[in-house]
Amino acid sequence: MAGFGNVNRALVRLLARKQQELRALGIDYRVTGVGSRRLGWIADPEGLDLAAIEAGSSQRSRLAPHASELCKWLGTAKADVLFEATSLSVKDGQPAIAYIRAALESGAHAITANKGPVIHAYRELTELAAAKRRRFLFESAVMDGVPIFSLFRENLPAVQLRGFHGILNSTTNLILTGMEQGLTFEQSLSRAQQLGIAETDASHDIDGWDAAVKVAALVTVLMGIQMRPEAVKRQGIATLAAAAVRQARAEGKPFKLVCRAHRAGTDVEASVGPEQVPLTDPLALVNGTSSMICFETDIFPALTITENDPGVETTAYGMLADFVRAVGD
Amino acid sequence: MAGFGNVNRALVRLLARKQQELRALGIDYRVTGVGSRRLGWIADPEGLDLAAIEAGSSQRSRLAPHASELCKWLGTAKADVLFEATSLSVKDGQPAIAYIRAALESGAHAITANKGPVIHAYRELTELAAAKRRRFLFESAVMDGVPIFSLFRENLPAVQLRGFHGILNSTTNLILTGMEQGLTFEQSLSRAQQLGIAETDASHDIDGWDAAVKVAALVTVLMGIQMRPEAVKRQGIATLAAAAVRQARAEGKPFKLVCRAHRAGTDVEASVGPEQVPLTDPLALVNGTSSMICFETDIFPALTITENDPGVETTAYGMLADFVRAVGD
Repeated sequence: MAGFGNVNRALVRLLARKQQELRALGIDYRVTGVGSRRLGWIADPEGLDLAAIEAGSSQRSRLAPHASELCKWLGTAKADVLFEATSLSVKDGQPAIAYIRAALESGAHAITANKGPVIHAYRELTELAAAKRRRFLFESAVMDGVPIFSLFRENLPAVQLRGFHGILNSTTNLILTGMEQGLTFEQSLSRAQQLGIAETDASHDIDGWDAAVKVAALVTVLMGIQMRPEAVKRQGIATLAAAAVRQARAEGKPFKLVCRAHRAGTDVEASVGPEQVPLTDPLALVNGTSSMICFETDIFPALTITENDPGVETTAYGMLADFVRAVGD
Repeated sequence: MAGFGNVNRALVRLLARKQQELRALGIDYRVTGVGSRRLGWIADPEGLDLAAIEAGSSQRSRLAPHASELCKWLGTAKADVLFEATSLSVKDGQPAIAYIRAALESGAHAITANKGPVIHAYRELTELAAAKRRRFLFESAVMDGVPIFSLFRENLPAVQLRGFHGILNSTTNLILTGMEQGLTFEQSLSRAQQLGIAETDASHDIDGWDAAVKVAALVTVLMGIQMRPEAVKRQGIATLAAAAVRQARAEGKPFKLVCRAHRAGTDVEASVGPEQVPLTDPLALVNGTSSMICFETDIFPALTITENDPGVETTAYGMLADFVRAVGD
């Protein structure tokens, strides 16, 4: 496990809770390595005592994560699978890409909850994985663990995706919901931070970057057109006054930060920005931390997936499901 | 192809249109047999001239579909896959079950758009398919071709389904929408029949039987509890007066024919019946022939899939997708 924050810790708990179901799928596991800035890079092929590590009483095989040491860490751990859940770097996707590359090179499957490797190195990592007969999977990168990428990869063969729209950033959606309930922007942001949804520096969400990164990831993987987040026309919610947000809701046309992407000739046009949506549009019913995506395809005019009230466990679940895809019978 | 009505005819057109995508998946095909009451049972391992058959100018190898003849038809056709799309028999699932059993026994995969075999013989046919190392697939049986069964089978490993609710019968939903628009029940039914959505004898839909059969199929397959449609508490829409339907919509609590199923101890309680739903519930936005299902699971509190404005092609697509699942690389 590279990174040992909320997501990988939730994954450890979920793996333990689903041990029986995993065994029924022919899968057993032990965690043989964890690496993070706080803990260092610890490995033991016999399995780590994660409780002791969290309590700070275990310090074996501590290594710094430079290229050769990373390989040594993976080798010491005898890793079959790397679960990568470090912080997102929108700029270059590092160090996540280096971790994933090293894992695949060493013969391990690479599973990430991180959008950086998808927007910066989807093709390279997918090709590397194929060459090594391993999997590079990232279901948790968009809409927590809801099966979006795997739906198209495995369940919608021969379908052409023409475009999609939806609400993909929970922080801004929660802030807008709070403003509709009477809070100022700052109060609503502060509440989202207290709930652990928004980060201390929430500008990445508020400016629409997180949503743009998700749109770029979806376009790149599902529409086969490499798209950088900078190519997504982007407007955040910081310019929306609380009074205007409340009035829009009162008038039955609430503001939502809407993501859109559509094919235009051989290219794709994509945008993220606040829109007023009518109450007859399912987008209007997506409140709080819920999210929604509507796919427009040649077969299904509109196929919509909505996720209500996800928790950190749903993100961890996406990694568990990828784990089953990679190593299950 | 057993049955050569709307669904299998749409499948023939869709297979032709998607020939290139299928080849990219390593799949080529020819239709070597069709059987229906009107056409008889025709087979040619070199491939049939379907246009000539539809025009009535081809009559080779006509056979009656009794057990031994059915095997002869499958053998003459050298079928790798049977596409079964005959009419539903709620009572006993025949003759579809016999066709599917014969196909599996002969070593062909069996793909059906028919709910009968699922509610009457899911376990038997699944076990027979496993013994023959073939597939028994039925994605089109519920919500046209939207991947519901395959979502749980392939993309939601280790998830426990606690219950679901939704709108699964398009005829009654379209009739209710028409009544809200000012039509009487009879006018609205008549319009649905003219649109080709409702059958001449629509009582199967109006009385809630179709929805109950779908609920039973979902419970049987996704919740692992064999359920008969008779066990679904059922009320249709025939008792709803048009004025009451209009008033309910005007008051912001429209009537919908809602399907529900929830675990209760080791059993499942299920119902189909008209309910007034608030406009803040996504159910209220499902109009016309659209449908929706919301799954309640241990991981996702509410994961909802909505299909808008499907056509006969979406049902055919479910069979094409099953075809790829059965024979693709």
